[in-house]
Amino acid sequence: MSDDKKLTTRADNFSEWYNELVLRSELADYSPVRGCMVIRPHGYGIWERMQRALDDMFKATGHVNAYFPLFIPESFLSKEAEHVEGFAPECAVVTMGGGKVLEERLVVRPTSETIIYSMFAKWVQSYRDLPLLYNQWANVVRWEMRTRLFLRTMEFLWQEGHTAHATHDEAEEETRRMLGVYREFMEGYMAMPVITGQKTNSEKFAGALRTYACEAMMQDNKALQAGTSHNLGQNFAKAFDLSFQNEQGEQAFAWNTSWGVSTRMIGGLVMTHGDDAGLRLPPKLTPIQMVIVPIWKTEEERAATVEMAKRIADDLGSFKRPDHERIRVHVDDRVGVKPGAKYYHWELRGIPLRMEIGPRDLASNTGMLARRDTREKRPISFDTLRTELPVVLDLIQADMLAAARARVEANTIRERISYDKFKEVMDGPGAFVYAGWNGDPAVEQQVKEETKATIRVIPDLEYRSPEAPTTCMVTGEPAKYEVVWARSY
Amino acid sequence: MSDDKKLTTRADNFSEWYNELVLRSELADYSPVRGCMVIRPHGYGIWERMQRALDDMFKATGHVNAYFPLFIPESFLSKEAEHVEGFAPECAVVTMGGGKVLEERLVVRPTSETIIYSMFAKWVQSYRDLPLLYNQWANVVRWEMRTRLFLRTMEFLWQEGHTAHATHDEAEEETRRMLGVYREFMEGYMAMPVITGQKTNSEKFAGALRTYACEAMMQDNKALQAGTSHNLGQNFAKAFDLSFQNEQGEQAFAWNTSWGVSTRMIGGLVMTHGDDAGLRLPPKLTPIQMVIVPIWKTEEERAATVEMAKRIADDLGSFKRPDHERIRVHVDDRVGVKPGAKYYHWELRGIPLRMEIGPRDLASNTGMLARRDTREKRPISFDTLRTELPVVLDLIQADMLAAARARVEANTIRERISYDKFKEVMDGPGAFVYAGWNGDPAVEQQVKEETKATIRVIPDLEYRSPEAPTTCMVTGEPAKYEVVWARSY
Ligand SMILES: [Zn+2]
Ligand SMILES: [Zn+2]
Repeated sequence: MSDDKKLTTRADNFSEWYNELVLRSELADYSPVRGCMVIRPHGYGIWERMQRALDDMFKATGHVNAYFPLFIPESFLSKEAEHVEGFAPECAVVTMGGGKVLEERLVVRPTSETIIYSMFAKWVQSYRDLPLLYNQWANVVRWEMRTRLFLRTMEFLWQEGHTAHATHDEAEEETRRMLGVYREFMEGYMAMPVITGQKTNSEKFAGALRTYACEAMMQDNKALQAGTSHNLGQNFAKAFDLSFQNEQGEQAFAWNTSWGVSTRMIGGLVMTHGDDAGLRLPPKLTPIQMVIVPIWKTEEERAATVEMAKRIADDLGSFKRPDHERIRVHVDDRVGVKPGAKYYHWELRGIPLRMEIGPRDLASNTGMLARRDTREKRPISFDTLRTELPVVLDLIQADMLAAARARVEANTIRERISYDKFKEVMDGPGAFVYAGWNGDPAVEQQVKEETKATIRVIPDLEYRSPEAPTTCMVTGEPAKYEVVWARSY
Repeated sequence: MSDDKKLTTRADNFSEWYNELVLRSELADYSPVRGCMVIRPHGYGIWERMQRALDDMFKATGHVNAYFPLFIPESFLSKEAEHVEGFAPECAVVTMGGGKVLEERLVVRPTSETIIYSMFAKWVQSYRDLPLLYNQWANVVRWEMRTRLFLRTMEFLWQEGHTAHATHDEAEEETRRMLGVYREFMEGYMAMPVITGQKTNSEKFAGALRTYACEAMMQDNKALQAGTSHNLGQNFAKAFDLSFQNEQGEQAFAWNTSWGVSTRMIGGLVMTHGDDAGLRLPPKLTPIQMVIVPIWKTEEERAATVEMAKRIADDLGSFKRPDHERIRVHVDDRVGVKPGAKYYHWELRGIPLRMEIGPRDLASNTGMLARRDTREKRPISFDTLRTELPVVLDLIQADMLAAARARVEANTIRERISYDKFKEVMDGPGAFVYAGWNGDPAVEQQVKEETKATIRVIPDLEYRSPEAPTTCMVTGEPAKYEVVWARSY
């Protein structure tokens, strides 16, 4: 598809805008395998930066990486009753290997609780062996019928944390800590504001005691569950005999947690920041932070502007500088492509900064700097790039988060709302609606059927309304919880 | 298994020594899935450092990362005749998904040429779209009957480079360049000397024009194929219609290369450097570079030595310093474990340096530094740690490579050898034998059957003997090539 064809606009068709944008910005492509996507270099470059940032945060909180098998014996899944019920229908199953039919069929991991806790059981004897704080970067497979690039694919890339603790409280603390790490990452790196809180029983992970989640609001006012953290209690420990001798010399079952985020976050990045001209990538996660477009008419001018552009790029990206001062710059010196087409190309791909360097700029030692997020343009001296650009990039990062926060705020309803009005909102523009709920799963189910909205979370304290709702939005009965309703991906 | 039980020695049983060491040093463990292993944090920490170093080298040579599906439609494999013949017998096959029997069975990737070149065909139209220089970090599955931890497992982790070029010569240059990158990595990071060269036709990759390899000599004098780089010619381009319009406006098929290294290298690291006390890890790849063991009798001494140890560790590892001056230090302050047991623990795990800090050392501001590779011990002032340790670590890295080189040299036979003598050597101590070969595959096959030795490579120029052998070791006919014979993993 040619770059100069206009994107479908968000207002016209948000879903079509998303698909077109992911394909045309070359984040990903459809593959010949139904439901599986190819993550192209521009998309994978974002994922690499997400991985690096998260991995550093995991290590700073005491976790180590390891790797467990892709295949899980079918019998393992069945050992935890809720778990198998949740995952068995979604499994890809290997029945043949090395030309023979297998005695026991192997499931391609949809998640690794079973295989990992069976190994933990082998390694843990005493309280001295606890806690185990593990993480795994891996691919997983869930057989999905309706797939969307990044948001719901048969195979996806993720990290799954798995830990074992001596007590319930320590496990709960870990579950909450990692939810906090996710929030810090999503706001600090993705510039994507989230609300955190607990899932209702009907929405929790298959096999968990409690599930917590980060929920982000996309530009169509639907929620994206961007990360989850589970307190698994002793369910898996009992299923896999993960027990230990405690300080009192008694045998006890361990307490587990698991937590994960995936390439789905890239979809969240697109739907949080993209506009009708393309992606807008936050400086901390973009593979390229600034593109330089040299502008020329004559061959002489070409040589001079390209040379200056490359000198600047080399200097800004030099490994002689400390990490945080190094800037990832690309020079677009393609011959036979007009400057306007180059601008369009890099806007579509969301590169935060563009600097144009024309022949006259060489004399004045000044380029023209354009911000992708605000589209502001201003001259900038080559002499101050080193000191100014890191500041500009930090500012863009902060501005993007602030803009996203303002959008979420504008589309959040906290005032008391009738159920009729709620239906109108959900059928119309959508919103995050904070409202009272009587705690009855039947009411939750009714709202889901009538409006396609679900309880995203019982929000954490800091997100709750100053005055808690006193009545259930649907039944008028006394409210047990304040909850956040929204349609979701 | 307790740490204080002695390892089987290399002389006693090299193969048993290897298995025991991998398990007891906690690099890896057997899993409940036949043929699949678990890579434990100590092993995965080495792999992470291997990945980081290689990834930087790939990027410095212009490559980008991407991700392609785990599953390959069975029909894809069949499109390249030699390729399917080579890989089909080793495949794991998914026949069920989402509870239903699949219409087309899916193969779990044993390697990704087919799926990747089918996508390249979609992306490449013109010579302007070339070259494509891609790399993928992924897991692959090959159904192996006899497996060994790291060396041959059903699932393993690797990187696979895949490139497309406009001409044969450019593809050949890429193939050779990446072989060079592998050699640089293996010698520079793993301290594992290799010989490089071309595989004979019978040993080349299924579907390749030419295969090049890095071969390393293990301490039992057997060869380990540690990395391969393939010039695939136009075989896959023709099978997947990967064609483009060249500068002359004609349609032409692209030229492909692929190249890969895997977690197998960790096995190579163990068998290159390990001794009868455990692993010896090169400073550039070890997760921990120095362990500090505080030594105390009284509680007061414990507090003081542990505090000093932690202060030193924090200072040496501080992120305030540039990367190359930062040292990865671990303080072993476990209570109830004797210093001797701690020394044994970390020697088994191959940590390059150990510093002991006793109560009297606090007064003299001096610790006792022990090298794992040479077992030398000497006092070292706390004041000069910052400047001395990076030098010591570089020295260890260099000494380990030199020691390995000397060992390879001592077990290499370049003088003319009779086939009878050759059989004795192969049945006995083993060796890398440089000898003449008449180029006949039947001779190659005969030697393999009679001695279990194979031609590892037709060595590159720099490895060839000063005087090329003139006759074939087996037949006495004129030699067409000088080749390197050895038994191998
Ligand atoms: Zn359960
Ligand atoms: Zn072929």
